[in-house]
Amino acid sequence: MADAATAEYQLSTEPKLRAHVADVLVKSGVAREHADVVADVLVAADLRGIESHGVARLESYYVSRIRSGHLNPKPNYHIVRETETTVLFDADNGLGHPVGKMAMERVLEKAAKHGSAFGGVRNSNHFGIAGYYAMMALERDMIGMASTNSVKYGTATFGKDVLLGTNPLAFAIPAGSEPPFVLDFATTTVPKGKLEVYKRKGKPLLDGWAIDAEGAMTLDPDEALRGALLPLGGFGTEGGGHKGYGLGLLVDILCGVLSGGAFGPTLPVVTDTREGAISHWFGAFRVDAFRDVDAFKADMDRELQYFKQSAKSPGQERIWVAGEPEHEKTAYHRQHGVPVHTKVWDGLQKLSGELGIPFDIAR
Amino acid sequence: MADAATAEYQLSTEPKLRAHVADVLVKSGVAREHADVVADVLVAADLRGIESHGVARLESYYVSRIRSGHLNPKPNYHIVRETETTVLFDADNGLGHPVGKMAMERVLEKAAKHGSAFGGVRNSNHFGIAGYYAMMALERDMIGMASTNSVKYGTATFGKDVLLGTNPLAFAIPAGSEPPFVLDFATTTVPKGKLEVYKRKGKPLLDGWAIDAEGAMTLDPDEALRGALLPLGGFGTEGGGHKGYGLGLLVDILCGVLSGGAFGPTLPVVTDTREGAISHWFGAFRVDAFRDVDAFKADMDRELQYFKQSAKSPGQERIWVAGEPEHEKTAYHRQHGVPVHTKVWDGLQKLSGELGIPFDIAR
Repeated sequence: MADAATAEYQLSTEPKLRAHVADVLVKSGVAREHADVVADVLVAADLRGIESHGVARLESYYVSRIRSGHLNPKPNYHIVRETETTVLFDADNGLGHPVGKMAMERVLEKAAKHGSAFGGVRNSNHFGIAGYYAMMALERDMIGMASTNSVKYGTATFGKDVLLGTNPLAFAIPAGSEPPFVLDFATTTVPKGKLEVYKRKGKPLLDGWAIDAEGAMTLDPDEALRGALLPLGGFGTEGGGHKGYGLGLLVDILCGVLSGGAFGPTLPVVTDTREGAISHWFGAFRVDAFRDVDAFKADMDRELQYFKQSAKSPGQERIWVAGEPEHEKTAYHRQHGVPVHTKVWDGLQKLSGELGIPFDIAR
Repeated sequence: MADAATAEYQLSTEPKLRAHVADVLVKSGVAREHADVVADVLVAADLRGIESHGVARLESYYVSRIRSGHLNPKPNYHIVRETETTVLFDADNGLGHPVGKMAMERVLEKAAKHGSAFGGVRNSNHFGIAGYYAMMALERDMIGMASTNSVKYGTATFGKDVLLGTNPLAFAIPAGSEPPFVLDFATTTVPKGKLEVYKRKGKPLLDGWAIDAEGAMTLDPDEALRGALLPLGGFGTEGGGHKGYGLGLLVDILCGVLSGGAFGPTLPVVTDTREGAISHWFGAFRVDAFRDVDAFKADMDRELQYFKQSAKSPGQERIWVAGEPEHEKTAYHRQHGVPVHTKVWDGLQKLSGELGIPFDIAR
């Protein structure tokens, strides 16, 4: 695990980090029960090695928006439409994590009773990693799905305007002795943060990542940051870019249009402060509606092992299945500490000072 | 429409082509009601411009397998497990199209009653275009999903073994005055047929399409045909190949493992004659469970127009949304005739002679 215990990182623990994040949010006006959920989702991202969606975003995505009045710390999360197997929430411009968890719990209850269910949330905000909500299905022996639209960074195939978020899709499927299959991916080739990392390191981008403001593919991080991200599959159609673009638009429809929230033309770009513009989508169904759970899990183990044990291309050390790297990182970070980038650590310390709360997260 | 009325193509009509395909199947031992469904699915593919999944496959994928005893022309399609909102069929090694349509109809009935539903089929065979089944949801104002695993052509990220099918995923979402959003895509970068086309034309492949038998990326069609297809996103992880690989494996799990059918280690490659080894997966939910249908459709039109009317990158003529090219081709082919490649046409004529049925498909 390259990210633990280096000069760039300091180490915290899961309980300390979670408690601190929750305290910061409570001090910012968020109800304790909601703050605890946000803390759990953010720290889960750090445990899984997805730093970009972890405590690094506490100040910029959440606390600063509460402080500037753009995010409602005490929202009235409420159901606006419901059937036997579907539910739609309005998040009242509150934090996305508590309402996301609430919606997925409702979906799981309905699926437990009827076999399958779907849910949506509108007027919400960034909800962290989509995989967190999909994975809530696992302990109930269900297959879970989760998705969210996001502020716009990406373009359409053959386009140059910034039209689409990174719009992740997540699926979680239980296994037996193997870790669960957890596929959680942005529908752009890379996230925007990757352009920023390459800029900082002075490295050229790779083909298929981004276009400049004129719509031409660029390897220059500065040009790309003024341009747009390309969909999974890259520029044009020859590498399948139209498929990634289709998936990104699918997510914007399932989340934004279906929920009656913001979508496409009304979705903000990152510099906008439009409120409650993010929407989420969830789904789940019972494994035992199709097969006995034990037989399914035994076959899942066979399936995952088949891929992991297959022959490697030259120079490769290992073949992974989706969710496996994050599963191993979680175990490692639980044992050896949760790495927090020094800049993020210092930011958390500064924020604690401003809020007048203790800063005690060191391992 | 480049494919209509050229020297390479002859023209048929939708009713004539459908009737002929059905007659061929009936003469081969398939029940009339099932033959009609297969004909409808195959001709729908030709109408949509997806030649590779249309009547071109009638002999090689279906009739020849019936004649050689590898596909059951008179299967006992039956339900093996069912709940309020889920259903699993066993296809008894019959044609995939009739049981696929049967399963999706059952899913739609359940979703109409309860809000959402999922379905599966095991021990089946190739079912044509996945989009056909997803699109069955449209006339009921539902959102439809369909998927199938397939014989193995593709590899894993960092792998060299042939492990995965082209494993398409399809989603269909109704709109108002705009054509519906229909995303139907293979989770490999390109289908195997594309390698064969490039071989025939003596053209080098593009980056990210395929590896040779040793696992190295190759631009040589012959080497690629002895190797494996790469997942959407290409070789390695830098272009997001692990995402396409994850989607391909997701499909194999949702179809094969979930249904109790063949998957991964037991799934055949194209030269195998293993029977009934293909499985399908379906899902649907009601739009009006989330929003009033008219408001949803009006917003779908706004969403689709937003993308279509956005600024183009240099040299591009048009920005499309998923399903739009196929929608326009269908209208064109209904008006001007359905193009059938001369080789396919001649093959159909030969097959008619062998079966002793009239060959009258010319427009």
